[in-house]
Amino acid sequence: MIRHTVAFRLKHIPGSTAERDFLQAACELAKIEGVQKFECLRQSSRKNSFTFGLSMEFADEAAYTFYNDHPEHTAFVQQRWIPEVVEFMELDYVANAP
Amino acid sequence: MIRHTVAFRLKHIPGSTAERDFLQAACELAKIEGVQKFECLRQSSRKNSFTFGLSMEFADEAAYTFYNDHPEHTAFVQQRWIPEVVEFMELDYVANAP
Repeated sequence: MIRHTVAFRLKHIPGSTAERDFLQAACELAKIEGVQKFECLRQSSRKNSFTFGLSMEFADEAAYTFYNDHPEHTAFVQQRWIPEVVEFMELDYVANAP
Repeated sequence: MIRHTVAFRLKHIPGSTAERDFLQAACELAKIEGVQKFECLRQSSRKNSFTFGLSMEFADEAAYTFYNDHPEHTAFVQQRWIPEVVEFMELDYVANAP
């Protein structure tokens, strides 16, 4: 299992229609084949400047690559993410029993 | 539900006994009352410099505060986290249906 997460901040006014529209568009990514446990999240710690997050899981690297290369994902990145996201950080996790 | 996560990088050599010892000590935090779904994770994205992560969930702010203030947590921060962690980022998430 690979958990792909991204924390981000939008250029939109908090609570605006534009903000909600972006988040709704982001949620459509959940429909891409192989995406599991998709979550749309609000980032609530004051120790960083991000305000939202997305989290999803993939069974393996092949499923992750299929998502990354999927035309619906690449179109979202070009048409929505790049124009509307001010800053972001991607963090990917796999289980690690010490 | 509040999901508390932290991505971090240790000063220890990867694969070292010191690294494993730190991670095992971190896993002990799972025993603090109110901690749910505790996960010890490896950070695998090359788009950031963190190598490990912890994730846990709390029912509410009161449970999160209880954990934060718990003597076993504050001792871990002072005795292990501060001396052994080079850099970290905390991200907290709550559900956000747009």
